[in-house]
Amino acid sequence: MKIPKPTVKRLAVYYRCLDNMLNEGKTYVSSKELAERLKIKSSQVRKDLSYFGEFGKRGVGYNVKNLIAELKKIIGIDRRWRVVVVGAGNIGRAITNYPGLYKNRFDVIAVFDSDPAKIGLSAGVAGPVKPMSDLKEVVSSKKVEIGVIAVPAEAAQDVAEQLVDAGVKGIVNFAPVTIDVSPEIVVEDVDITVSFKTLAYHLRKYGKNR
Amino acid sequence: MKIPKPTVKRLAVYYRCLDNMLNEGKTYVSSKELAERLKIKSSQVRKDLSYFGEFGKRGVGYNVKNLIAELKKIIGIDRRWRVVVVGAGNIGRAITNYPGLYKNRFDVIAVFDSDPAKIGLSAGVAGPVKPMSDLKEVVSSKKVEIGVIAVPAEAAQDVAEQLVDAGVKGIVNFAPVTIDVSPEIVVEDVDITVSFKTLAYHLRKYGKNR
Repeated sequence: MKIPKPTVKRLAVYYRCLDNMLNEGKTYVSSKELAERLKIKSSQVRKDLSYFGEFGKRGVGYNVKNLIAELKKIIGIDRRWRVVVVGAGNIGRAITNYPGLYKNRFDVIAVFDSDPAKIGLSAGVAGPVKPMSDLKEVVSSKKVEIGVIAVPAEAAQDVAEQLVDAGVKGIVNFAPVTIDVSPEIVVEDVDITVSFKTLAYHLRKYGKNR
Repeated sequence: MKIPKPTVKRLAVYYRCLDNMLNEGKTYVSSKELAERLKIKSSQVRKDLSYFGEFGKRGVGYNVKNLIAELKKIIGIDRRWRVVVVGAGNIGRAITNYPGLYKNRFDVIAVFDSDPAKIGLSAGVAGPVKPMSDLKEVVSSKKVEIGVIAVPAEAAQDVAEQLVDAGVKGIVNFAPVTIDVSPEIVVEDVDITVSFKTLAYHLRKYGKNR
């Protein structure tokens, strides 16, 4: 079954919201409540969840714990994933030490940098920064599947190729440039400035209407 | 004119790609080249840009410089925007010092934190970390329009209310929780873990088909 990409992203957002609700002590939730919390349409919630069969009971809603367990399986976080980060700058260190990643079952096991001055410095939870020459050995011996690119734009393509060569299957790219890798490698681009630009667009637009 | 949100996001991505192309010395670009670089359909590129009138010439393509200038105007970055960041942790400091923000005309002018131990420490380009009690005065006197939430989930709603009370018009929320503010405030959520989860979904799915 081919799930549209925006649906996959929303499933991740539902998961987060349900996890927050569970912590608040909720046991059942309706699509309406979920939609209100996330400020989307409840028909959208029902449609997205219907891709995966019937979870909800009419009049009762979804069992929060069960829905979380189902979403975990669907998203693929009913297991842990091993991650390496390339780039020990501000962004690389922030990602490495972001508590949400570990909590969501992504383990950053090593951080790499090409700058000799950074090698050996602490990268927080992932231990000391390693040289790029260790990348291949670490990815292979630790069975790492995900690589994070947290280097400047001009270095991103080279790092992408080194990650693929080392054996990662997926890349989260924080560099502000589109990388070109073979189509069986899954790439997720995260451009921090895109969110600011989307905001600017809406601020300007709404500003005019005020 | 109501532009769909995914289109707005793609416009920001086109802008980034064209800026890279300009730096490479390109003067004209076709929708096909732009699409290939971004790994999307060229019909999508043409459709997105057609919302804003005819920029391209048949057989010649788009003038890169002109298209960049048009996109700047459309997106709303033909002017600079003032930003405050709340939260001087890893994420807050990484955003504050992210060179792409300044380059894209977003100026982080101050960083705030509620932790007395962090007040006065350097936040890089934005100077020393300020106490939350200064937020309102800074936002109002410096005409700040955008606030960034870079605090843990449990503090996010309170910070959102303080930002709105101080007078910001838009919020970029990095906390992993949906914030509830009045509808005229524009909110962009950035959840770093959502990209990792989307990746996990696709890795699992493609992995099964191999």
